[in-house]
Amino acid sequence: MKAFAAEFDPQPFHLDQEAARQSIFQGLAASGWHTAAATMRLTVSGGLQIAGGLVGLGGEIEWPRPTRAGDTLHVESEIVEIIPSRSKPNQAILKVRITTLNQHSEPVQIFTAKLLVPKRP
Amino acid sequence: MKAFAAEFDPQPFHLDQEAARQSIFQGLAASGWHTAAATMRLTVSGGLQIAGGLVGLGGEIEWPRPTRAGDTLHVESEIVEIIPSRSKPNQAILKVRITTLNQHSEPVQIFTAKLLVPKRP
Repeated sequence: MKAFAAEFDPQPFHLDQEAARQSIFQGLAASGWHTAAATMRLTVSGGLQIAGGLVGLGGEIEWPRPTRAGDTLHVESEIVEIIPSRSKPNQAILKVRITTLNQHSEPVQIFTAKLLVPKRP
Repeated sequence: MKAFAAEFDPQPFHLDQEAARQSIFQGLAASGWHTAAATMRLTVSGGLQIAGGLVGLGGEIEWPRPTRAGDTLHVESEIVEIIPSRSKPNQAILKVRITTLNQHSEPVQIFTAKLLVPKRP
């Protein structure tokens, strides 16, 4: 957590126990981008297998609570919508809600992703 | 790029030049999460100074094109809206559009962030 923060999100509440205690997080918190990157790893290595790979166009991300040191995360993915491309008959956009939960089953991240996927014409 | 992808987004188009050439990216592409993490680093180290730090609640992220090996990125931040909290007189939500541009001034990421900020009651 601290190594990721030192490289990508060097703020006191991600780096220092004491500073974090006095921050809005009331204790050391992972960078949301670390949660996002770990979620991607779990998603790539897990059950969401898409032909051509996971190609993200973007999406809506929420961090309802931070990931903490020692947390164990898992990911649940739900297909929300499949939107065929209007211009390209062999493409569609897949809307997937990727929820990252800690060991207490509390969501630490909800990412409603738009993925570019191949489609039969 | 490859080190980040190997840890967090191990897909062929982020890891292998030849596989990437034959993918939708038509060449090696950084993970979107690497672009996001690098953007956070530029934002934290740059001009967007907020009392209490940058505390992200979430937001809308878009990757209109990938970051490529050798790209030089910079970030432009624009305050879009300030929404005072209804329940907490000393808090507000700051909507900021954080655009990450490559050396050709092409956006590689547009993140419309919601930040939790302190406010005078």
